[in-house]
Amino acid sequence: MFLSAKGHDICVVDNYFKRRIEKELHIKPLIPVPDLQERSRVWNAITGKIIQLKIGDICDYTFLSEVFKVFEPESVVHFAEQPSAPYSMMDRDKAVFTLTNNLVGTVNVIFVLKEFSPDTHLVKLGTMGEYGTPNIDIEEGYLEIEHNGRKDRMLFPKKPGSIYHMSKVHDSDELYFSARIWDLRITDLNQGPVYGIETDETQMDERLATCFYYDEIFGTVLNRFTVQAVTGIPLTVYGKGRQIRGYINIRDVLQCVELALKHPSRKGEFKVFNQFTEQYSVLDLAASVKKVADRLGYSVKIQSIKNPRREDEEHYYNAKHTGLVELGLQPAYLTEEMIVGFIRKVEANKENILMDRIMPKITWG
Amino acid sequence: MFLSAKGHDICVVDNYFKRRIEKELHIKPLIPVPDLQERSRVWNAITGKIIQLKIGDICDYTFLSEVFKVFEPESVVHFAEQPSAPYSMMDRDKAVFTLTNNLVGTVNVIFVLKEFSPDTHLVKLGTMGEYGTPNIDIEEGYLEIEHNGRKDRMLFPKKPGSIYHMSKVHDSDELYFSARIWDLRITDLNQGPVYGIETDETQMDERLATCFYYDEIFGTVLNRFTVQAVTGIPLTVYGKGRQIRGYINIRDVLQCVELALKHPSRKGEFKVFNQFTEQYSVLDLAASVKKVADRLGYSVKIQSIKNPRREDEEHYYNAKHTGLVELGLQPAYLTEEMIVGFIRKVEANKENILMDRIMPKITWG
Repeated sequence: MFLSAKGHDICVVDNYFKRRIEKELHIKPLIPVPDLQERSRVWNAITGKIIQLKIGDICDYTFLSEVFKVFEPESVVHFAEQPSAPYSMMDRDKAVFTLTNNLVGTVNVIFVLKEFSPDTHLVKLGTMGEYGTPNIDIEEGYLEIEHNGRKDRMLFPKKPGSIYHMSKVHDSDELYFSARIWDLRITDLNQGPVYGIETDETQMDERLATCFYYDEIFGTVLNRFTVQAVTGIPLTVYGKGRQIRGYINIRDVLQCVELALKHPSRKGEFKVFNQFTEQYSVLDLAASVKKVADRLGYSVKIQSIKNPRREDEEHYYNAKHTGLVELGLQPAYLTEEMIVGFIRKVEANKENILMDRIMPKITWG
Repeated sequence: MFLSAKGHDICVVDNYFKRRIEKELHIKPLIPVPDLQERSRVWNAITGKIIQLKIGDICDYTFLSEVFKVFEPESVVHFAEQPSAPYSMMDRDKAVFTLTNNLVGTVNVIFVLKEFSPDTHLVKLGTMGEYGTPNIDIEEGYLEIEHNGRKDRMLFPKKPGSIYHMSKVHDSDELYFSARIWDLRITDLNQGPVYGIETDETQMDERLATCFYYDEIFGTVLNRFTVQAVTGIPLTVYGKGRQIRGYINIRDVLQCVELALKHPSRKGEFKVFNQFTEQYSVLDLAASVKKVADRLGYSVKIQSIKNPRREDEEHYYNAKHTGLVELGLQPAYLTEEMIVGFIRKVEANKENILMDRIMPKITWG
């Protein structure tokens, strides 16, 4: 919608995977999200713009080839993956599904570019979780290494903490390979956890809402804290809560994708950006939500629970994120006013909240 | 056979993948290799030892679980992968097959260990090709990195040159993960190209021969040069021929696997060895084969052909390989006498050579 509003011809490819998982695991986004056909109709009615839809699975190479041959994209934005760390850690079947679904989807996109559209720029969604929490500064994709008096510029070594994050490491390796060996044009956006509910486009009509998840499968931490505050559940901090990550507002995500598209990689170039705007610990975020919610009349508790994940709970974290700012990103940093907005939106949709989907049950065991 | 001869109880799991590819692509090993049932019978008749067989696919988790529950292995040696770089580069189907077959097989082994046998030591065959040809010294698996005044020990950054080698990078990442997150005991053997025809066990009976391949799918360079010398075909050097790799004799491979098994990793440890004994350029090997073969009365030509691969043809290469030597590896370095032996063995089986399978046809295009 963001790119369509700016005049680009858009074709959306989706296999409704998340909707299938919603049914399988009894999950719902806070605000009901109509199917793409309905949303595309609403978008057209409001703006006059057309968003094409192709419902199918990018793991099906015949389907994907057909989409490329007909649409002939100038750029591809590839977000089509199983995106949940806890889902990938539930059992062997879901681990293997996550790995093969994400890898085959990405490899299919690579091959369809190679075969039909070698000049098309691919913008791929990665994750900051690929890096893990190393004891050195995290650079943007590459690291200049000096070793025994010699130098090289190498992919930054990765240390993912879940099978899902691992699948993204595999993707990045494949993408770097496809740039090196087949001269494709690739940008990888290593995104941090996203927060926020609204964009300019979703505000046009309730039926254009984004999927705001607060559950343990698709939810992210600030969203969950907001829902916990409103429903009177203690904010669940995993272990010590000193896990630091880089966060980004959903509005800034859109800016980043547009900036990446406006500055395509050269042929053979694999460009990497760290796509977040601010670092916070889990405790920082819990404290911010508590402060704002208490002011609004809630009485929020913060509760440390046994960490269902296996991760460092205290660690060094300093990740570079200058690439997108240099291209013009103007971050909307997290403010108390913003959190008030999130809380008000959650309150307005409180009757939709599934209370039994808030607490984590999946462990890394 | 090597481990059985030393008194270990052995169960071999195989899905006859290579035999299927032999038929598909019209390939044959130099010396006919009977099926495993026949070889196991011969082995038993000669030595009195029993090698159990399970014919099935480790990508089938039910099958693999059954094998583990019944056999209860103390150690697992996992060599069960699509092993050919050119095969993986033939087309999309074979690329996707290589990636998914190797990844799912490895992940299944990881899960079967996690579920049924968490103390079992896994020895996995990796490849030196995972590293590519960086401009710095290649360490054994890990690199001590100092960056902006801080330090960490990280996985050595990888830069594989084919989809097959990429699949091994994915494996290594999964194995490191399974040690870190699930406390498994893992050793990864990053092996260089293997040469050689005979071991003590194959010499007991012609029917116990190893698969000596000289074709572009499963063959390695020294084997191919030997066959080219004997059949009067110029030794085919890809491009400049200054590609340097670490090579190892097939007899030393057996020593290395045994040493790895005798020194199992601790729980949670991912140990990596670089499994080769000497570095040579392609031109070095061509010159050695020419020298020996010419002395035996051949008149060998060395011919540079357009490189079917995309790789650096001149590069720095200095890979550490002290880990296995420290455990006791006594390398059998490549000698002229050894090459004489290879040539004599090829001569004795000359009538089996498929002349149309010697020259490379698969490109990295």
